[in-house]
Amino acid sequence: MNGADRLCDTLLTHGVDVCFANPGTSEMHFVAALDRKPEMRCVLGLFEGVVTGAADGYARMADKPAVTLLHLGPGLANGLANLHNARRACTPMINVVGDHATYHLENDAPLTSNIESLAQPMSQWVRRIKGAGTVAADVVAAYEAAMTLPGVATLILPADAAWNPADVVPTEALRLPPRPAVDAALLAEVTKELRSGRRVALLLSGRALRANALAAADRVAQAMGARLWAQTSNGRIERGSGRIAVPKIPYVVDMAVAALSEIDTLVLVGAVEPVAFFAYPGKPCRLVREDCRVIALAGAGDDLEGALASLADEVRVGSESPRQRLKPDEGLPIGDLTDDAISYVVARFLPESAIVCDEAITSARQFLALSEEAAPHDYLQITGGAIGIGIPMAAGAAVACPDRKVISLQADGSGMYTVQGLWTQARENLDVVTVVFSNRAYAILQGEMRNVGVNEFGRNARRMLAIDEPALDWTAMARGMGVEAARADTAEEFTRLFRGALGRRGPFLIEAMVSNS
Amino acid sequence: MNGADRLCDTLLTHGVDVCFANPGTSEMHFVAALDRKPEMRCVLGLFEGVVTGAADGYARMADKPAVTLLHLGPGLANGLANLHNARRACTPMINVVGDHATYHLENDAPLTSNIESLAQPMSQWVRRIKGAGTVAADVVAAYEAAMTLPGVATLILPADAAWNPADVVPTEALRLPPRPAVDAALLAEVTKELRSGRRVALLLSGRALRANALAAADRVAQAMGARLWAQTSNGRIERGSGRIAVPKIPYVVDMAVAALSEIDTLVLVGAVEPVAFFAYPGKPCRLVREDCRVIALAGAGDDLEGALASLADEVRVGSESPRQRLKPDEGLPIGDLTDDAISYVVARFLPESAIVCDEAITSARQFLALSEEAAPHDYLQITGGAIGIGIPMAAGAAVACPDRKVISLQADGSGMYTVQGLWTQARENLDVVTVVFSNRAYAILQGEMRNVGVNEFGRNARRMLAIDEPALDWTAMARGMGVEAARADTAEEFTRLFRGALGRRGPFLIEAMVSNS
Repeated sequence: MNGADRLCDTLLTHGVDVCFANPGTSEMHFVAALDRKPEMRCVLGLFEGVVTGAADGYARMADKPAVTLLHLGPGLANGLANLHNARRACTPMINVVGDHATYHLENDAPLTSNIESLAQPMSQWVRRIKGAGTVAADVVAAYEAAMTLPGVATLILPADAAWNPADVVPTEALRLPPRPAVDAALLAEVTKELRSGRRVALLLSGRALRANALAAADRVAQAMGARLWAQTSNGRIERGSGRIAVPKIPYVVDMAVAALSEIDTLVLVGAVEPVAFFAYPGKPCRLVREDCRVIALAGAGDDLEGALASLADEVRVGSESPRQRLKPDEGLPIGDLTDDAISYVVARFLPESAIVCDEAITSARQFLALSEEAAPHDYLQITGGAIGIGIPMAAGAAVACPDRKVISLQADGSGMYTVQGLWTQARENLDVVTVVFSNRAYAILQGEMRNVGVNEFGRNARRMLAIDEPALDWTAMARGMGVEAARADTAEEFTRLFRGALGRRGPFLIEAMVSNS
Repeated sequence: MNGADRLCDTLLTHGVDVCFANPGTSEMHFVAALDRKPEMRCVLGLFEGVVTGAADGYARMADKPAVTLLHLGPGLANGLANLHNARRACTPMINVVGDHATYHLENDAPLTSNIESLAQPMSQWVRRIKGAGTVAADVVAAYEAAMTLPGVATLILPADAAWNPADVVPTEALRLPPRPAVDAALLAEVTKELRSGRRVALLLSGRALRANALAAADRVAQAMGARLWAQTSNGRIERGSGRIAVPKIPYVVDMAVAALSEIDTLVLVGAVEPVAFFAYPGKPCRLVREDCRVIALAGAGDDLEGALASLADEVRVGSESPRQRLKPDEGLPIGDLTDDAISYVVARFLPESAIVCDEAITSARQFLALSEEAAPHDYLQITGGAIGIGIPMAAGAAVACPDRKVISLQADGSGMYTVQGLWTQARENLDVVTVVFSNRAYAILQGEMRNVGVNEFGRNARRMLAIDEPALDWTAMARGMGVEAARADTAEEFTRLFRGALGRRGPFLIEAMVSNS
């Protein structure tokens, strides 16, 4: 038994049994060890951004980490953008980054780089494994960090720590302590605020956006006249018919400021204080009123469901039936295929227990409003603003939940970042319907250019903000990677294709040729 | 005039007039400034690995830096793997990484990360711009660093440094000092070694691999019986008919050790001491004999051509005519399309002044041997082992040299890393013929698995090392990005397609279905 075997065994002991991988020479002993563990499911990504994005999507749905296998500094670097998203979503994840044998580092071989320096900004926790003898303890520590922070734990595995002999005594599974309960004094403080007559809002994220926690939050809100919001970006929201719908803090600074202007006290439940995504000359960075009181009731690693249940108890209200909202019952859209027509059709025909992955950026803005009474579903979105997570996240969610349909709402510009993930969807025959909103532009940036006062684009701006010339043919790219695909030019065609895709299993891509007027 | 305008002007003053870009919101003022400078050529990449790889290929051919435009930490992260290659190639490059406005950093907005920590491992030089007032000086310093180290200079541009008003007095162009001449004592030392009867080899890299420098090195070698080698990986080699061919240090450890075993003194000319790419149990990391004397005559930033010319003068030999090598004159290959058949056909029909970009990994191993007497050409290869540079590097080289044909020899596994670069080739109508060696495997890793003693692959190993199931269709992917493409199943078909591609302008991709026996 070598260090790599020990690493695999320790992961499996802790229920970590999916490995998203893109290996290289320095990880060959790890690959050989994985090959001796058929109970570990190895999923190959043809680029590391696929690997890390899939691990994020997986853990958001599985509520436990997958392990990634990355090849030295450059392999980690390729995966960093989606680790950034995972870090912002507080997704449990264990990365194993291979490195040169300890004694070879001093030779500065071509693939040598400072892996710690690369890993630190996008990980909550980083450790270099000293040798085969510490592998098991290091994996346990990484697992504990990933689950309790929760977040991204990165282990650096020198090749000799993988190939050297390791202790054969198996490691016992770590028993995780219960998540810390909310502080009683803080709870009393928030209760006092709720009763003070001040205008209070609860800002939710993390596990506070699961159905039960939302129900508790809703009881508080209804009893005390408080508002509920979700963060602008969240790892996962349980929503749809029979669940409590909460609006998100708007992305646009002016809209967010307006929304928050009437709040005297903002209570953070698994959320962080809302700030502008970007600074703009003359606009505020903090979004709450200057005199708004901000109370952090519970953080991402705390027992958020418990916190909200306790709060509901404190304010002594009974269980209330969820508010009813209207189900959109307009006729099906016809003619031009607009963004909103797509969102409407997706919401209307959304299958029970679907998982919606949203990286549509500017295109699916109406989806949340239109799907409040859609079939119950999970909603996963890009969390850190690092585009290129949609296709991989959908793949990872589908690996975690093979019996649920995954609907991937994908902007074309962002989709190109990790387009290779379509191959993984084909390789694993994942049940993912990808809807590409083909607007052939970095539409959000065209808006931002107008924000900085540029309304007439010259050649350079046009060539940096439009992605036409040549137009991308998503159906050809998808087929080139083994994913069946078709193109919709009208709303009717889109409806027909989308319903057809729901009626079959396996990956399917619809290129929606949007024409927004 | 704001900081962004000043930045553009200062770049243009120094002849930096190509910007490979993938912008985001924090760079909008930079984009707006670029839009006011039509003399700056902006080339969009749909992923940052394309941007940095293209900037590397551009600078290797242009002998001056391009500027890149990258969006915050995640945008930089996506470009790091190819910056790693550029750093190893000592390629001059200036990266401009946008960041949040200075005063917004403390708010830890979603896209915030430690950009310095990410940049440092893959840059020779990093600086954060303080404000609009220092932009010009900072750009001059970055240009100087990029040209003199030479290497990758990364500038972090806070959004407010871009949008705030800047001084309007234009900056004068920096006059670069001549590259440092080789130390006379060191030169005498090497001369003494060459005359000592010891077996001496010159190990060349960087500008020591340009035609004139190679001719000088050859005069030394012929006069003194010394050997010449190139590093295993080099940024650019001028080679082909009428030029001096030098073998490269083999990649495989045992072969490299055998080659170097007869050398008593190794003289480094722009090269670093050869070490194993990876450590293997029981194999050496340093490749020279333990008692081999290693003399660093000149480094990447020194005047390497001058150093070799001086050495040739010191050993007092006249100009010799280059050694003649045989031109392969076998008939054209027929039947099965093997790796070697492809290399043979490419070498045989290589156009005058072609630029060959090689990321074929295991597939084009015979190309160098077969092309010694091919038409004079430049040969660019992956330098840092971070795969995914081939398609972008070819794009960048074609931007630098619009009148020269670029031949991109591309492995399929590596090609998938930055496949998006095909779109940039189409967008810019670059004259690149891409040959994809489609072997549907990480072939090098299958060999490495055998090296660690695994000959029978189980399901996990097969699924991590083979990239069939589903097979990639490169012609479909290329067409999906606007690049014409065709598939060759036999040697005759390949020859016909390759010659046809040479006879037209613009990007073309040939998927070579290799069947190696």
